[in-house]
Amino acid sequence: MKSFLINVFAATVCVILFLASTIRAETDPLPSWNDGPTKKAITDFVTIVTTKGGPDFVKPNERIATFDNDGTLWTEKPVYTHAFALLDRVKEQIATDQTLKDRQPYKSIAAKDKEYFAALYENQELDTLADELVALPFGGMTTEEYADWNRAWLKKWKHPKFGVGVQSLTYQPMVELIRYLEVNEFKVFIFTADEGTFLRLVSQELYGLPPDRVYGSHVRTDYLAEGDKAGLVRSYRVDYINNWAGKPRLIEQVIGARPIFAAGNSNGDEHMLQWTARQERRSMSLLVHHTDAEREYAYDTHTDKVLPLAKKENWTVVDMKNDWKTIFPSK
Amino acid sequence: MKSFLINVFAATVCVILFLASTIRAETDPLPSWNDGPTKKAITDFVTIVTTKGGPDFVKPNERIATFDNDGTLWTEKPVYTHAFALLDRVKEQIATDQTLKDRQPYKSIAAKDKEYFAALYENQELDTLADELVALPFGGMTTEEYADWNRAWLKKWKHPKFGVGVQSLTYQPMVELIRYLEVNEFKVFIFTADEGTFLRLVSQELYGLPPDRVYGSHVRTDYLAEGDKAGLVRSYRVDYINNWAGKPRLIEQVIGARPIFAAGNSNGDEHMLQWTARQERRSMSLLVHHTDAEREYAYDTHTDKVLPLAKKENWTVVDMKNDWKTIFPSK
Repeated sequence: MKSFLINVFAATVCVILFLASTIRAETDPLPSWNDGPTKKAITDFVTIVTTKGGPDFVKPNERIATFDNDGTLWTEKPVYTHAFALLDRVKEQIATDQTLKDRQPYKSIAAKDKEYFAALYENQELDTLADELVALPFGGMTTEEYADWNRAWLKKWKHPKFGVGVQSLTYQPMVELIRYLEVNEFKVFIFTADEGTFLRLVSQELYGLPPDRVYGSHVRTDYLAEGDKAGLVRSYRVDYINNWAGKPRLIEQVIGARPIFAAGNSNGDEHMLQWTARQERRSMSLLVHHTDAEREYAYDTHTDKVLPLAKKENWTVVDMKNDWKTIFPSK
Repeated sequence: MKSFLINVFAATVCVILFLASTIRAETDPLPSWNDGPTKKAITDFVTIVTTKGGPDFVKPNERIATFDNDGTLWTEKPVYTHAFALLDRVKEQIATDQTLKDRQPYKSIAAKDKEYFAALYENQELDTLADELVALPFGGMTTEEYADWNRAWLKKWKHPKFGVGVQSLTYQPMVELIRYLEVNEFKVFIFTADEGTFLRLVSQELYGLPPDRVYGSHVRTDYLAEGDKAGLVRSYRVDYINNWAGKPRLIEQVIGARPIFAAGNSNGDEHMLQWTARQERRSMSLLVHHTDAEREYAYDTHTDKVLPLAKKENWTVVDMKNDWKTIFPSK
């Protein structure tokens, strides 16, 4: 009887061990990535910087990873998501006050006339462009009112091509990459050229990242205390554009450290990716290349500087069509 | 024999339970605080916002706490610590280049003439004052060079009255408060009027807070890529002064949330403390009042606005002399 029990016990242990090994084999941290050099470069990098005693070991609190958002973590075509919100807000403002149509930028927006904005862009008047398109539509709102408006908008908006909301427009392989880095004790941040305050409304839900891990361009606020209330009111001025060299500058300002991992997809990410790549510690710069016209989009707008640089400076380029098993979340 | 073993076992359990209850009773999370209304207000507040199902429960990820540093977490007299570093750097610059003595602000600093600076302050030329005193001494350095210089300085500097380094100038009761809040799942941040980049060099060691939990005034940097190197170079311009209304503005920009706990000690913290106090959720604003001439300093400089406001708006005022059992760490 005793030896029978021992045998049963031994058999059970064997079964459990077998199941455990199966589970382990099946627990690919990046299941939406096809096997190949890109996926291997990522897992090799993470293994190398997390191997204690290895020559390229980086301590957990120094494992900083920064991601761009539009075109890197979610779809940015036909235009970046927040632009739809800004346009809806401008339409709402005009509907409330028809006299707005007599002045810029409302006049050009109402007439669908791109020339006014194209001229500002060509004349390098980016501050004016940002003030008029990003700050003006929500100027005078408290930060709470802004959050409420955009939260409501995010609930109802659907993408013009895919017919789904932002929850279904994130790149599943990149969300897996964020989780994989976090499991390996990286601190993950998003640095978007869009307003940080907008993305923060959904960053926890979409990426598992709280608001204090999300930074972007910023509209200046003013402190206002009246009666027994106090709050911050949005001004009409963009006080930080988080793009190009603005990205490493903001990363230094808010994290106080150089990342060892960075991911982007366009010229706006050039400096962040280069700053990450050019350091003595082992690092990884990842460029997402939109090559999948069938499942998402194929395009090379704003990549003329960053694509050649990626090859020249040995960054890892993600070929969406070939490297990604799936693009969007299946749910 | 069997009953003997059971008795021994039961006795052992009793002893362990007794010891455990003793340990629990002795584990005061704020041992350097004297019992009294201030300590009770703090522990009551933390209990109330962390009690699940209670009317004032706040979810862990929304438990944001922000602390001022100079005069709130460490000694700020006779002047704030970083001012000693700036002065030493200016002296070093003059020693290297005597011609600096012919121009401002070096001329006035070398001659120990306060009038030049007093005039800038009175004329509200705070930007110029900040540029000349904070940005200029380290202008042109990379962020790494700046960190190296200040790290070396922090190792050798001793306080003129106490003869000790910064490690012995933190307020032990406030360090305990940070730990107590963290144990209760608060996210703790420092918002200093001084440069964030300076305090970040010691924030982990002094407060257990990593660089990305420390924000302050900021000198604009410029991105520079040369050869195979890339880095950020400090400019000659302060692009953010984190004081007065600048504190809530920066908190919103970098955390994206209103704190439910804030601590400060001077007029510079007025807006942060008021913004924290005036909200619908339960919150706590704490004002450290320097009343202990014997163990530290007793003073009321820059408190003329904030002390009356504390009484009027029911903030909690810490009376250092009576509320704190010890001021500095014993080690």
